[in-house]
Amino acid sequence: MDLKEYIANVPNFPKEGILFRDITPLMQDGLAFYEATSKMEEFARKLGVDIIVGPESRGFIFGCPVAYSMKIGFVPVRKPGKLPRKTVSCKYDLEYGSNELHMHEDSIKKGQKVLIIDDLLATGGTVKATIELIEKMGGEVVGCAFLIELTDLKGREVLEGYNVFSILSY
Amino acid sequence: MDLKEYIANVPNFPKEGILFRDITPLMQDGLAFYEATSKMEEFARKLGVDIIVGPESRGFIFGCPVAYSMKIGFVPVRKPGKLPRKTVSCKYDLEYGSNELHMHEDSIKKGQKVLIIDDLLATGGTVKATIELIEKMGGEVVGCAFLIELTDLKGREVLEGYNVFSILSY
Repeated sequence: MDLKEYIANVPNFPKEGILFRDITPLMQDGLAFYEATSKMEEFARKLGVDIIVGPESRGFIFGCPVAYSMKIGFVPVRKPGKLPRKTVSCKYDLEYGSNELHMHEDSIKKGQKVLIIDDLLATGGTVKATIELIEKMGGEVVGCAFLIELTDLKGREVLEGYNVFSILSY
Repeated sequence: MDLKEYIANVPNFPKEGILFRDITPLMQDGLAFYEATSKMEEFARKLGVDIIVGPESRGFIFGCPVAYSMKIGFVPVRKPGKLPRKTVSCKYDLEYGSNELHMHEDSIKKGQKVLIIDDLLATGGTVKATIELIEKMGGEVVGCAFLIELTDLKGREVLEGYNVFSILSY
């Protein structure tokens, strides 16, 4: 099964000059969604992870199924104002402006082996910030899994030293 | 297993006077997350559904695992500006202001049996709008499943005539 056939390539979204990789056709096809997610689960099982962490909101799409199937927990990384209890947070720069990510401060236990799952590895900024939060709480990031990697943006270099897995490269 | 023990009750969030039901402790506990999600899967299997639909972003948390486990597709319902291709949309009123939901116009096929999954049934506004979109595309909404139902807000009345399932009531 060629999973790239289930990615819609949409020019000029969200702005002029960007070729957007739309994963919704893959998600809505039962077998394509199953195949992609099971590759992530296989990676997670090999690593023997204790818990999955996924950034809002597309990290939930593949991260929650892997957690459910392995009977382990899932921890969301969210934008400011979404988590109701005390959080740890990390601010990082974007091309224009900046972004801030939060996790509940009790969400990762010391020594837990953590796998970060997201749909897309681009510049790596979101994942790098997520790693900082997990490590601040004493978790060990044993891997980062993505459906798509945009190799030109060199996110993999930003994540040097971490075990990075991606299913589709562009 | 009493799943209510895994819900954190947070007073005055997101604003004064609201008691927020925080589901993150349930999600981060592997067995609690498994038990809750498997109840939804059981409901979905009984109904013989073809596809799962879930509103951004907490509908993804339980909806995607059920889709993966059943090897069926998942369709996201998103806020304006998130979906890159042609959409159908529905605007509805909130207590203050209004909200607009979108789905890709080719996301549901005529005659598909659809289960809507979300974390919370409150007033029912989001689900009602989602049902409208699905039916506009020719899908048949055979059920709506929630982790939590806030019975005082009478969302179930708004969804009269539909098969509504909730795991925890407050």
